[in-house]
Amino acid sequence: MTPEEFRRHGHAVVDWVADYLDHVERYPVSSKVRPGDVRAQLPARPPSSPEPFEIVLADLDRIVVPALTHWQSPNFFAYFPANVSPPSILGELVSAGLGVNGMLWATSPACTELETHVLDWMVDLLGLPDRFSSASSGGGVIQDSASSATLCAILAARERASGGTTNRTGTTGRLVAYATAQAHSSVEKGLRIAGIGSDNLRLVDVDDSYAMDPAALARALECDVADGRVPFLVVATTGTTSSMALDPIPAIGAIARSHGLWLHVDAAMAGVAAIDPALRWLNVGLELADSYCTNPHKWLGVNFDCDTFFVADREALTGALSILPEYLRTAETGQAIDYRDWQVPLGRRFRALKLWFTLRCTGVADLQAMIRRHLALTEELTAWAREDGRFELLAPARLNLVVLALRAGDDATRELLARANATGRALFTHTVLGGRYGIRICIGGRTTERRHVQAAWSLLSELAG
Amino acid sequence: MTPEEFRRHGHAVVDWVADYLDHVERYPVSSKVRPGDVRAQLPARPPSSPEPFEIVLADLDRIVVPALTHWQSPNFFAYFPANVSPPSILGELVSAGLGVNGMLWATSPACTELETHVLDWMVDLLGLPDRFSSASSGGGVIQDSASSATLCAILAARERASGGTTNRTGTTGRLVAYATAQAHSSVEKGLRIAGIGSDNLRLVDVDDSYAMDPAALARALECDVADGRVPFLVVATTGTTSSMALDPIPAIGAIARSHGLWLHVDAAMAGVAAIDPALRWLNVGLELADSYCTNPHKWLGVNFDCDTFFVADREALTGALSILPEYLRTAETGQAIDYRDWQVPLGRRFRALKLWFTLRCTGVADLQAMIRRHLALTEELTAWAREDGRFELLAPARLNLVVLALRAGDDATRELLARANATGRALFTHTVLGGRYGIRICIGGRTTERRHVQAAWSLLSELAG
Repeated sequence: MTPEEFRRHGHAVVDWVADYLDHVERYPVSSKVRPGDVRAQLPARPPSSPEPFEIVLADLDRIVVPALTHWQSPNFFAYFPANVSPPSILGELVSAGLGVNGMLWATSPACTELETHVLDWMVDLLGLPDRFSSASSGGGVIQDSASSATLCAILAARERASGGTTNRTGTTGRLVAYATAQAHSSVEKGLRIAGIGSDNLRLVDVDDSYAMDPAALARALECDVADGRVPFLVVATTGTTSSMALDPIPAIGAIARSHGLWLHVDAAMAGVAAIDPALRWLNVGLELADSYCTNPHKWLGVNFDCDTFFVADREALTGALSILPEYLRTAETGQAIDYRDWQVPLGRRFRALKLWFTLRCTGVADLQAMIRRHLALTEELTAWAREDGRFELLAPARLNLVVLALRAGDDATRELLARANATGRALFTHTVLGGRYGIRICIGGRTTERRHVQAAWSLLSELAG
Repeated sequence: MTPEEFRRHGHAVVDWVADYLDHVERYPVSSKVRPGDVRAQLPARPPSSPEPFEIVLADLDRIVVPALTHWQSPNFFAYFPANVSPPSILGELVSAGLGVNGMLWATSPACTELETHVLDWMVDLLGLPDRFSSASSGGGVIQDSASSATLCAILAARERASGGTTNRTGTTGRLVAYATAQAHSSVEKGLRIAGIGSDNLRLVDVDDSYAMDPAALARALECDVADGRVPFLVVATTGTTSSMALDPIPAIGAIARSHGLWLHVDAAMAGVAAIDPALRWLNVGLELADSYCTNPHKWLGVNFDCDTFFVADREALTGALSILPEYLRTAETGQAIDYRDWQVPLGRRFRALKLWFTLRCTGVADLQAMIRRHLALTEELTAWAREDGRFELLAPARLNLVVLALRAGDDATRELLARANATGRALFTHTVLGGRYGIRICIGGRTTERRHVQAAWSLLSELAG
């Protein structure tokens, strides 16, 4: 592809993406393809000679688009939002075009410094404690996902608890971590990866709203200490996946402090909502946290991947993750941030660009307005559900998530979800709360308006029989 | 940003990227900025109202570009190539625009199936053993980096060696892994992350070409077994970072088999060269490997991140990494590939698009020709260096890497590297081999031609005094 062809095809792709986003509402939100259907349309081998770009673009329409779940549809209420704003798409395009690797400061200073800078902006925008700003002893870094952020927190906590010996000699087998059964699966996965094991994750009891019971945490800790175990980490969640439960950070933080535990707060979806000053209460207690993460790639218009991960003590993180072979040594080693030491992989893309573009080209006020709109829509939906005697809420509706069930029972709810999704007019997912099957309705699409939420409710309401 | 503005600004960004790539040769390859220089130009806070896109684009030129290392410059000979082809940039753009998350088959079937399909294409294109194809019991997956691929191999090997108990109970402290001191730092980092520890990595002796000595591996194994340790993994490298050394896979594989070790082959940069049938010898012995990785994002024109990771037994991998909370259960769970079980993070971008675009729009023949061109240029450079009595090669020149030193000694070589890089006319990096400081010259730029290599050699030759 010549430079001139790149310009021409590039304009065509921009228009293709613009058309896709303009029309995404028309598509069934989920696809009806069956496993193997896509592959059956693809040739067994790639071509020896270049194919015309137009054919590739046509294949996107013919093969790929019909086999997508349309996460950008305003009728997407499943899992979590992944709302992609136009500026973020352009930021990703610039990043791909520059093709720089930000593993070290020296391998592209702007890549590192812009990242540090926009992460400091996020501390300010979300009202996070100063200890997470790079002007303190802490700082922020972009991870691909909250899963990776949680793993990094586990590794930093593990290293601190072992006095810096685990990286040399391996885990001791005595470390114990704490979270609730409502915490994200990445907590358990991270403990497995770190060689600590699922058996050493204590599932702390929750209260009626599925939030961690601090008294239960204290009891579990005392029990383990009495058994000669080494508690090292508690993961609290601000907005659980199943029900948006909010673990009480101040009480958990106080217990963590008194036992010398690392406190990681996972606010993957909900945390960015604090960009609205009215929601700053989401951050209460964060000054007690050693690490924190939230995902602009979920609810703040930045395309995946952009998890913002903050630590209060950057040396605890780099102490766990740094490794310096001769071929990575530069004149600035130790004088500037080398983000390779803040993450699992070595290489890294220029991901700060898409966050920078989004914040500058959208503006803070519009992002705040979007969050407020989603919250208002969720309140409205909650009211409709409450007024309908056939439905009940399985958990308190919080922020942008409602979990509904039919009073007629799990089978009826399961069937309602399947029938609603089969229409393609909306997409919801499910969870199980307190043994009950529930439909999760998560409102966070960039283009989701009142009429979409109304239509989604009408769909459920009509099919509920 | 309205849809119409997105089209307009999108065209402008495509042109901006095209201009950048057209002009990248003109820039000093590395920047002269000092730590803090970039941040000093950025405002302390993001704007409340949207800024005009033109200002953001101007800031790219004003603040970002002058503070980049230009990895796409034809005069970039540092670290490893990161050659980005125009089609791959457009693939990344489509991926950002679609904004789908491929964590499960059900969350976008095309995302998963296209990935499986192009990974099977790679098995065919590179002449890899059938056991890595999805038609066998194995298969491929795109990881962000070879570091992550190595970590996944470590975890799968760890789990197999422990009979599937480590994920539950943690590591035993008796596991031992093997690699040479020339293996990538991610091997040691991965062992640290996995809770095994650096002390349990045996650095096996190398021969004169810095390749693993299989007899030394056998001796180390016997020693550890006699000590009651549990050898579980050997990582062999096809093309080490420092000198492109090639560990002898057949002999290592035979030893690994006889001891029941997992063999992971890290061919991050060199492996893709096997797309040229004349270089298929790079794959000798791979039929003995349990896992293998190579990076189209290094030398095959795909923008970072695109590491292709293959396993012979996909159940060993998913057995180590799978975790299934209720909210991720779908009708197709267990019936189709859910790639979240093949990697550390949960979420994933639609990365197969950029590999698909690159293979289709470039064509296999052109990719083969590019590899052959780089090899020929490296041979030529090697000949020039051999003819110049002031220089010596610190290791056999292999594929696209030459490591040079001045006979005048390390200080002279170090000074030469610093002076050459300071001109901005080329960028090289360094390593230490056998206690000697050497200049690494790695030739793999998509637009690097004979004149660039000639100029690089002239630069070194003139400054060598």
